Amino acid sequence: MRDVAVIGTGMVHFGELWSDPLRKIWAGAALAALDDAGVKTVDHITIGCMSSGLFTGQEHLASLLADEAGLNGVPATRVESACASGGLALRTGFAEIAAGLADVVLVTGVEKMTDVDGAAATYALGTAADQQWEGFHGITFPGLYAMLARIHMQRHGTTIEQLAQVAVKNHANGRLNPHAQYHLKVTVESVLESTLVADPLHLLDCSPITDGAAALVLASVDKARELGRAKPLVRITGSGLATDSIALANRADLGELAAVRKAAERAYAMAGRKPADIDLVEVHDCFTIAEIMATEALGFFAPGDGGPAVERGDTAIGGKIPVNTSGGLKAKGHPVGATGVAQAVEIVSQLRGAAGERQVKGAKIGMTQNMGGSGGSSVVHILEVE
Amino acid sequence: MRDVAVIGTGMVHFGELWSDPLRKIWAGAALAALDDAGVKTVDHITIGCMSSGLFTGQEHLASLLADEAGLNGVPATRVESACASGGLALRTGFAEIAAGLADVVLVTGVEKMTDVDGAAATYALGTAADQQWEGFHGITFPGLYAMLARIHMQRHGTTIEQLAQVAVKNHANGRLNPHAQYHLKVTVESVLESTLVADPLHLLDCSPITDGAAALVLASVDKARELGRAKPLVRITGSGLATDSIALANRADLGELAAVRKAAERAYAMAGRKPADIDLVEVHDCFTIAEIMATEALGFFAPGDGGPAVERGDTAIGGKIPVNTSGGLKAKGHPVGATGVAQAVEIVSQLRGAAGERQVKGAKIGMTQNMGGSGGSSVVHILEVE
Repeated sequence: MRDVAVIGTGMVHFGELWSDPLRKIWAGAALAALDDAGVKTVDHITIGCMSSGLFTGQEHLASLLADEAGLNGVPATRVESACASGGLALRTGFAEIAAGLADVVLVTGVEKMTDVDGAAATYALGTAADQQWEGFHGITFPGLYAMLARIHMQRHGTTIEQLAQVAVKNHANGRLNPHAQYHLKVTVESVLESTLVADPLHLLDCSPITDGAAALVLASVDKARELGRAKPLVRITGSGLATDSIALANRADLGELAAVRKAAERAYAMAGRKPADIDLVEVHDCFTIAEIMATEALGFFAPGDGGPAVERGDTAIGGKIPVNTSGGLKAKGHPVGATGVAQAVEIVSQLRGAAGERQVKGAKIGMTQNMGGSGGSSVVHILEVE
Repeated sequence: MRDVAVIGTGMVHFGELWSDPLRKIWAGAALAALDDAGVKTVDHITIGCMSSGLFTGQEHLASLLADEAGLNGVPATRVESACASGGLALRTGFAEIAAGLADVVLVTGVEKMTDVDGAAATYALGTAADQQWEGFHGITFPGLYAMLARIHMQRHGTTIEQLAQVAVKNHANGRLNPHAQYHLKVTVESVLESTLVADPLHLLDCSPITDGAAALVLASVDKARELGRAKPLVRITGSGLATDSIALANRADLGELAAVRKAAERAYAMAGRKPADIDLVEVHDCFTIAEIMATEALGFFAPGDGGPAVERGDTAIGGKIPVNTSGGLKAKGHPVGATGVAQAVEIVSQLRGAAGERQVKGAKIGMTQNMGGSGGSSVVHILEVE
């Protein structure tokens, strides 16, 4: 298997991008990454996108977007695993280079979500759940994650204040990220006073609906050295992917995110690393409870200690294991297909020492954890700077 | 790069499968392929599906289908490139093994298309074209391919009778395929007397709307030998993928399918083969003109000779290069995400010498050519039996 490095990153400011069509949002990130890498063409493009069909009435993004970037003819692969589509695009690009099918790959994620009415957006997102056994009966994602939160609270004594602390931390980090959708200050009180969406989750426990795109340029390490970019080389040392039952009713244990645990085990094994080796992590905080459960499934905290860890400040910048320095899905925004790629953009920025005010000092090894639906799929990557 | 072989195939009878949900159709093909390969689990699953969101209201097939097959936890990747999604699933599974990320991969394609009203199906298929510059202005796929046919007729003198001969041949082949949607006899007269859909294309120039699924089990050649299956080993020796402008208006030359030519060039180069080496091919005959143009782009006939070649019988079983022995999309049916995988199922069956009445004698090297939209993407594979 050939070694793979990230040699370029790009992303657009996340938000409600009313005047920009999907192709333009995507091109903004893709061209920025190519520019950052100093390359004009690539051997392959991967595109993570959850549901351009339902959100914009356009499939066949491989053809549409290769042409939009001026890369007509270049092989392109669109992948989908609901909100883990971006992480899957990274995995698929990594495999092309590892196999020797490509030397340089443009890895991208995109979603245009806001240009539909609210019910249509909720319906489109709901297709990440089991429609036959969950969606058609009326349940949507806040309800699914509320059930996971209730079980965690009952089993471990996790509190709504601990959930709120996740939002407080991520919004504080997001204020330091110019690409973030929101730069507002959030307190425990403002979370608990916000509208109750699905008990115990309030509006400020939920990630928003966002338009956005993010991109990476990957290269074989040999090719990266040949291109000789000045920036420090960031290698992808671990890639893990796993599934779980899509419907909560079929899960073995609702107290853990098994797909996250399995994906992490595979990534740790490939990289020869353990949780204590990781300097910072971007996790999939689509809801505040998801961040707490993810940090447990990744092995950073024992089951049930994810909530207290946030209270202790362990997951803040400067803490034991900084989580979501970018602001996370919560503050940076969650254009679902782009999220997994944007997580890697943040980690590369940190490992290059280029994260500005939110820099984690001495960060050498980072991790990304992207998740589909209520944990039906997950993708974990480990990145290391030379 | 590690060598990859096909060690199992499976597919369901294509047709209007009203009583079966997508997951059941998929499982029928997937479990048949696992059984044929003699394996109970795999390291990865790939799923080609064009638009389960628009056709069935369900995305996140990776999680849904891994669980449905009893393979909960196994990594799974859904890919989409419109009607080339199945070929892309084969390419993606090939890359996982070639990279050493997996030893055994279940490659699948599926589409459930008939359980929506006709306008919704036409809309969903239309998302494979450029919605902003084609679809929203009212053009659908028969119209796009009718324009390609008109240009071919004007430039090369291709006749409507030659187009009809493609349908006659493919329906004759389909009558020999128990999995085919249609077993009806078609004549040049019946094609020309059928409803005119988009001049010069008649109803019987068009492939149908179909429910179906197909599956392959791939393994590294080393793993395949270790498993020691009795059937002859079929290697994947070439894999080529390419894009072109999605909108016809942006193409350099409407007289050729450039994405098909480029994908084929890449596959030939990887396999070290040339058109004269290929014993039979499954091409993407979504419309009769598409088969003629594909056989030219793949290098089997000179530009303009694709039409006369059909009249000469060169593409019939027993001819110079048998095309679509399975019946093709035309007669076997076209469940869009499944088609590219079903093409490979046919080629493997032929290379194993197990194609019954439609067997091409002495077939050793076969090719598949799958296409998205009006040629905005294409995937070509070369398969060879030991």
